[in-house]
Amino acid sequence: MLDYALLDALVSVVRTGSFERAARQIGVTPSAISQRIKLLEERVGSVLVIRGQPCSGTEAGLRLARHAEEVALLERTLAQDMGREAIDGRIPTIRIAVNADSLATWFVAAMAAVPDCLFDLVLDDQEHSAEWLRRGEVRAAVSGSDAPVQGCDCRPLGSLRYIATASPDFVARWFADGVTTRNLARAPALTFNAKDMLQARWIEKHVGEGVVPPTHWLPSSQAFVDATQAGLGWGLNPEVLVADAIAAGRLVPLLPDAAYDVPLFWHFSRSVASALSPLNHAVGETARTALRPHGR
Amino acid sequence: MLDYALLDALVSVVRTGSFERAARQIGVTPSAISQRIKLLEERVGSVLVIRGQPCSGTEAGLRLARHAEEVALLERTLAQDMGREAIDGRIPTIRIAVNADSLATWFVAAMAAVPDCLFDLVLDDQEHSAEWLRRGEVRAAVSGSDAPVQGCDCRPLGSLRYIATASPDFVARWFADGVTTRNLARAPALTFNAKDMLQARWIEKHVGEGVVPPTHWLPSSQAFVDATQAGLGWGLNPEVLVADAIAAGRLVPLLPDAAYDVPLFWHFSRSVASALSPLNHAVGETARTALRPHGR
Repeated sequence: MLDYALLDALVSVVRTGSFERAARQIGVTPSAISQRIKLLEERVGSVLVIRGQPCSGTEAGLRLARHAEEVALLERTLAQDMGREAIDGRIPTIRIAVNADSLATWFVAAMAAVPDCLFDLVLDDQEHSAEWLRRGEVRAAVSGSDAPVQGCDCRPLGSLRYIATASPDFVARWFADGVTTRNLARAPALTFNAKDMLQARWIEKHVGEGVVPPTHWLPSSQAFVDATQAGLGWGLNPEVLVADAIAAGRLVPLLPDAAYDVPLFWHFSRSVASALSPLNHAVGETARTALRPHGR
Repeated sequence: MLDYALLDALVSVVRTGSFERAARQIGVTPSAISQRIKLLEERVGSVLVIRGQPCSGTEAGLRLARHAEEVALLERTLAQDMGREAIDGRIPTIRIAVNADSLATWFVAAMAAVPDCLFDLVLDDQEHSAEWLRRGEVRAAVSGSDAPVQGCDCRPLGSLRYIATASPDFVARWFADGVTTRNLARAPALTFNAKDMLQARWIEKHVGEGVVPPTHWLPSSQAFVDATQAGLGWGLNPEVLVADAIAAGRLVPLLPDAAYDVPLFWHFSRSVASALSPLNHAVGETARTALRPHGR
């Protein structure tokens, strides 16, 4: 069997990106971390860590780190079957890729329903989150696509509904004569980051083609809502984050009946499926109440 | 003079990371973008873009993109001096590095006070945000350090106050006999990402040394607050984001009188200082009311 104390050092270096931070996390000196990584590299016969700022795992290093996570998850199932909280007092960590708007609206509730488990969340756009799973860097992902990922199962979660919103003053200034392609080409939009296609897709679906609005770049779900209310721009916000502001008149939908639904899917690694089953259940149940049924 | 239509293509590729996205942003075909970049590379005599997934700028490419941004800012000053909104109907974009908790608490208000300007925000830890400015990738930064950056001015903003908080149930489960090093070594903490030292520093300052808590990794200010309230872990939250929850009893401070203040500083590039002066003013004024005076 592998020496899992060495693997712990590897997991920590890959997760924190530095020997110093891994040392603090494990509670040993940086040189002890360095020795453990070297020893593990000798035993495995491959370089496992690319030393840099930050440090990252080689392909072999990432594969070993993934194995360590899987073993920790299996140990949790073992402990539960034996009626104990944990075998060695340690809690397993599950690494998951999730889109920022899911985290801002419903995913925390799902996490909170799973006891005795630590989460390591990676944020990425719903059109890109499954790539983390494909690369083996996470054990599960909330994705906007149901395209199969090798070694993984996929379940539909429902749709997150978005409303294109702006402040009343913003609408009066930029859209006084309607939400036209001409006005959209001049009014500042909000864009989460370069991967965010929501505003562009909404324009194509509800207004017309070929419009490229000037835009702010604002990579935070809550700041997106705050910036919309402050009149910086218009943007697609999750309905649940803006329902109160719309009801109070602080925000207005740009167009009536022009909601934009993004279907979401839960992908998870079959190799740890039984250890993930409490999480799979919590994710399914929370999504069922927080999201809209697909295609309605 | 340079051909600024070519520079526009470069700026857009560097910002969006792809020829396709740059093409959509500018409203031309990807092959037109590719031709413009090639032409610019021939004229300048250097490779400007590293073609990849995503595309990124070479050192020369980033320097040129920065120049284009500076010229756009100077054009805005020119337009204002001539009493016009913009010279060619376009609005300049200012790229700024800001820490997530500033964006979640006060920075949107500062942005909203600056008219006719687009913002491109990069999020990074307050101990790392100034590095973006040092590398020339942003024009200004909110940083936790007052260490000088070459070519930049620095102004103190005040301190963002953090409170170590948890849900009442969480405190009852993990800290029934006090916030001790022993209990902290077992109770799940929240950590924003590998760069986030706040929880570790708070423990060192208020409880003791050498404690390494098990932790969730959760890279979102609002999700941090949500996860604290949901009982997933304890963590340092900005006081303004949790004051209501503390008053309502949904969250409790782990220790009385154990606030943690993070001093913040505004660094900005002198080369565009006059164009940035409305932003400098808005940042200073907003920070003066939202942050605490240094060292109080």
